[in-house]
Amino acid sequence: MPLGEFELIARYFTRPGRRGDVLLGVGDDAALLDVPAGQTLVAATDTLVEGRHFLADAPPQSVGHQALAVNLSDLAAMGAQPAWALLALSVPDADEAWIDGFSRGFHALADAFGVELVGGDTVRGARIVTIQALGFVPPGEALKRSGARPGDVLYVSGTVGDAAAGLELARRCDPGAMDATLLRRHQYAEPRVALGIALRGVASAAIDVSDGLLGDLGKLCRASGVSAVVQLERLPLSRALLEGFGATAAERMALAGGDDYELLFTLSASAAPAIEPTLAACCSITRIGVIGAGRGIRCFRSGLEVEQEVAGHDHFAA
Amino acid sequence: MPLGEFELIARYFTRPGRRGDVLLGVGDDAALLDVPAGQTLVAATDTLVEGRHFLADAPPQSVGHQALAVNLSDLAAMGAQPAWALLALSVPDADEAWIDGFSRGFHALADAFGVELVGGDTVRGARIVTIQALGFVPPGEALKRSGARPGDVLYVSGTVGDAAAGLELARRCDPGAMDATLLRRHQYAEPRVALGIALRGVASAAIDVSDGLLGDLGKLCRASGVSAVVQLERLPLSRALLEGFGATAAERMALAGGDDYELLFTLSASAAPAIEPTLAACCSITRIGVIGAGRGIRCFRSGLEVEQEVAGHDHFAA
Repeated sequence: MPLGEFELIARYFTRPGRRGDVLLGVGDDAALLDVPAGQTLVAATDTLVEGRHFLADAPPQSVGHQALAVNLSDLAAMGAQPAWALLALSVPDADEAWIDGFSRGFHALADAFGVELVGGDTVRGARIVTIQALGFVPPGEALKRSGARPGDVLYVSGTVGDAAAGLELARRCDPGAMDATLLRRHQYAEPRVALGIALRGVASAAIDVSDGLLGDLGKLCRASGVSAVVQLERLPLSRALLEGFGATAAERMALAGGDDYELLFTLSASAAPAIEPTLAACCSITRIGVIGAGRGIRCFRSGLEVEQEVAGHDHFAA
Repeated sequence: MPLGEFELIARYFTRPGRRGDVLLGVGDDAALLDVPAGQTLVAATDTLVEGRHFLADAPPQSVGHQALAVNLSDLAAMGAQPAWALLALSVPDADEAWIDGFSRGFHALADAFGVELVGGDTVRGARIVTIQALGFVPPGEALKRSGARPGDVLYVSGTVGDAAAGLELARRCDPGAMDATLLRRHQYAEPRVALGIALRGVASAAIDVSDGLLGDLGKLCRASGVSAVVQLERLPLSRALLEGFGATAAERMALAGGDDYELLFTLSASAAPAIEPTLAACCSITRIGVIGAGRGIRCFRSGLEVEQEVAGHDHFAA
């Protein structure tokens, strides 16, 4: 006999409390939360749709991980310390095996970052997952998209393009044919929480790479009222991506692929040398360009300008 | 040419800030929010699915209203003052007329309660709306489901059953045939925010009626470890419901219909007489029963016990 909604919640989404600041968690009409005195609350929400953000045959653990990861990445892009999450889960049926896997993927990542699930809603419908992540940042230290200034140096963390390549592999239903690290980058992205915290009061601007590097860089530039130059030969591309897809496709995936959940950020040129070692202790970071006056993004390869047709991901683009 | 995702957000979901406690609203990776010192944060999330919570041909204004109302109702059930909302909107296409109507319904209710939209996500998929509502309550004054004690008096606000009747009318595609107030109760429920605030430190337990009065009363009783007796002849039924559907169907809708978004709450018998006038100044309230020891819910009509087969709404029930 299939479980009912309330049994599902009790079995898979109710666990002993892990944080002393959760005064009331899952099980009432709303959660009661104790925000630390003197901290700014940071709130983000992101939705994953089956067939768009994850494939119908994706391991449910990966969907649970990914749904939380994209939200923690939003908090990381603000320099926030994550604390709590709410989960709105729409699933077509009470498929316990799927929900069990989903909850394990979710809780494993939540535990890794000290996040507690404090509420949610479970409904029957198309498989769509919305998570709201809440965290804190000291007043005035949040990273924004809007602070980049001409002369700032542009960085990206980790490697870019791997997640798009992993999605492509998953679509081909032939993940075994190529390096499993690419598939893992698509299904189990690691939010850059430590880097975001290290960038507090240091970065002039930051955004996470969710809709493609050029698309997200465009948002950062528009919010800051600046332009950018990107040195394509400096893009951090993984060996797995280059060997699996070749240099041309790798560059395209790096610029337009999305879902890498790396941080794209700017540092003032004068501050950059001193802070780079601290940041690199969190994860690899790479200078990929500079910020300028005016508008737009220009890409260069070996000193020659390259026209880029790629646009960031838009869910409603024709 | 259809609008893109970011133009949709800019046109329909980005407005001048209305609250001084929103340090950064729609348009960055996350919102920055200033929780008042010494207040407890209250967080709720609820999802509406087309075809289940609203009909495909429902006016988009009503969907925008309803999606926020159900979340404000959760905050009301905690005694919280609502402040901010995040919106995750999945729609099958960039139908501007629908999104325009939806946003007007959403913003009208948000304005009525001083709520500001501070973030969200817009994706393409089945029409599913998830909202997260955030608010505050003074420490220790939140209403919970778990505080009812034997001897407490059981109340419900407003009238019950109207929303279920309104949904039935909408399904028949013949709303003109009966009182429009029922349809309005389904599509434009009013969250009982003022009553929830008035119940702070007064009610021993509270829950909002979203899954049917008996179902939600069952949750309150289980959370409190108590039983309840309901006097069916005391159920507050509207004239529109009684005239439109007759006494038998009206009672069934009142007990099992759901989506009324009234508050079901308990007061100690000694405190009740003194506090009733204050509460009745917010909206009508009706004593419908008493809390007892033990478990279960028993219903009586004119002194005779009546077996109730009706169960609360479960999204995954067979």
